[in-house]
Amino acid sequence: MSSEPQVRELGEQALLKRLYAFCPPELVGDDAALLRVAEDHFLVVTTDLLVDRVHFSDRTTSAADVGWRATTANLSDLAAMGAMPLGITVGLGLPGELSVAWVEQLYQGIVACLQPFKAAIVGGDVCRSSVTTVSITALGQVPTNRTITRDQAKPGDVILATGVHGASRAGLELLLHPEQGQSLEPLERSRLIQAHQRPYPRLDVIKTLACLYPAFRIAGMDTSDGLADAVLQICQSSQVGAQLQRRQIPLPPGITDWITETQAIDWALYGGEDFELVLCLPMPLAETFVQQFKEAVVIGEIVEEPIVVLQDCLGQYPDEILSLDKGFQHF
Amino acid sequence: MSSEPQVRELGEQALLKRLYAFCPPELVGDDAALLRVAEDHFLVVTTDLLVDRVHFSDRTTSAADVGWRATTANLSDLAAMGAMPLGITVGLGLPGELSVAWVEQLYQGIVACLQPFKAAIVGGDVCRSSVTTVSITALGQVPTNRTITRDQAKPGDVILATGVHGASRAGLELLLHPEQGQSLEPLERSRLIQAHQRPYPRLDVIKTLACLYPAFRIAGMDTSDGLADAVLQICQSSQVGAQLQRRQIPLPPGITDWITETQAIDWALYGGEDFELVLCLPMPLAETFVQQFKEAVVIGEIVEEPIVVLQDCLGQYPDEILSLDKGFQHF
Repeated sequence: MSSEPQVRELGEQALLKRLYAFCPPELVGDDAALLRVAEDHFLVVTTDLLVDRVHFSDRTTSAADVGWRATTANLSDLAAMGAMPLGITVGLGLPGELSVAWVEQLYQGIVACLQPFKAAIVGGDVCRSSVTTVSITALGQVPTNRTITRDQAKPGDVILATGVHGASRAGLELLLHPEQGQSLEPLERSRLIQAHQRPYPRLDVIKTLACLYPAFRIAGMDTSDGLADAVLQICQSSQVGAQLQRRQIPLPPGITDWITETQAIDWALYGGEDFELVLCLPMPLAETFVQQFKEAVVIGEIVEEPIVVLQDCLGQYPDEILSLDKGFQHF
Repeated sequence: MSSEPQVRELGEQALLKRLYAFCPPELVGDDAALLRVAEDHFLVVTTDLLVDRVHFSDRTTSAADVGWRATTANLSDLAAMGAMPLGITVGLGLPGELSVAWVEQLYQGIVACLQPFKAAIVGGDVCRSSVTTVSITALGQVPTNRTITRDQAKPGDVILATGVHGASRAGLELLLHPEQGQSLEPLERSRLIQAHQRPYPRLDVIKTLACLYPAFRIAGMDTSDGLADAVLQICQSSQVGAQLQRRQIPLPPGITDWITETQAIDWALYGGEDFELVLCLPMPLAETFVQQFKEAVVIGEIVEEPIVVLQDCLGQYPDEILSLDKGFQHF
């Protein structure tokens, strides 16, 4: 086996690409798969695996928070497709010496996260494993004329972010180094920690879109792997480029009193796990949406040239070309 | 944490029962969950987690076989609900040093198993883990008037098994101890090994039932955890009992030339992973079904008294009361 390429050498994205060869091409490459099960609706499916010490740690995350975050990650993938949730399944790999209380608290976190959306745990499996593993599959539904996918962006589209970025990364820093961020107000501080421990899936965005428009063309993705990754993936799928405005990227309140602006922008672009949505939509739709949904911010524009450039309108920083190489790799 | 009860102390069934408290009661306790998404159909969902050295081993199972078996286990759960598959998702936890070839062969096995049923891999996730973990969620559909559940058995129902039992357990024995079973014909031997490495989900049973009956009442379950477990679970859910006939339990051809009948019956009852179905249905349905589906065998009858008894019509063995305690426990 020594001369064969290893998973580690290939990396996550390259491995996924090899595995895509085994899947129907129309079903891969988005946050979730769309299955046509009725005339007017798609069934939407997404799955995530979380592993102890890779995706969570007792140092920064309680069992209930692990459950909450895993659920949010999956519901966020549904939101990224424009879908509302039906339910989730939970597969657990558990070391024998793990406390039963940990498992029950995990479930409490899952149910608490699902509850506002009237979704439920609809199935599961438990088995022995040397490492605590949580596998969640979320099921949702979306009307066929209101699907959001990565490949629908067109030059001229407005790029929106549905909220601040870098908050989860900042919250992690505060959990790991509680002596940091003395300049933050108590409320700012607790919001950053909350952003890391109890992020919300942006299903409220999907509800608002459904109220505003009976049908639409919107390209989108969630920012679980960072804002830069989301914009880059959308541009790659849609074969377009983007001009992002550095000064318009929404940052957490008070963050630049603690860290430099350059650091804050870096966390926003690459920190990941903010579980916001990036949406690319025609100007008229964007205008009415931003009026209704106050947290949404215009961060740039889709262009024809297939590169993603970060621009500074004040000219303080040179234009920066973003690439997928800097994104989060799981291996 | 030392004084808190551990997962190991509680055991799999007791842990599952505690976790059921977090789920809607109508969705748990069967092989898969039924979600009402349309007037005339249920969406059916089931999930399974497989862990290296717990559920598979390089010694007895190639990567392609792991993929095949995991897929069969999930499709078998769909069959146990009367459903035909729509697709599956695959979540993988992978050590960095695992060969890429192993992962691709796993996928080849999955796709090969799905192919006859025109189902596909519709989504997935890969991440780093210290232990190879395969999480599969299968999605299917069943007409509302043709669902099979565990709780529908009634006294007087005929109990059918859809094929031989103990073959997977016997195949495992031959893989671990190739010097054994010298009395077996080459074809018998290869069929037992095949039963372990490449078991088939009994979706052909579901197709036959759909052809024969537009609607029905059938209680059923798959025998992934053994024939005894399936009958016991059905009886518990339906609040009935069963009389099983020892001499009618279908055993693999040639098996009693190799091992004792007592051993063979033990493997049939408790070996597990045969992925056959146990069906409980009214006599007239059972008669037409057995005529159409030649592998199906009558193994007993549902009775009122809520115990499961294994009887020997020849009187050679005393009546034996079966209980869930002897079933397979994953912790």
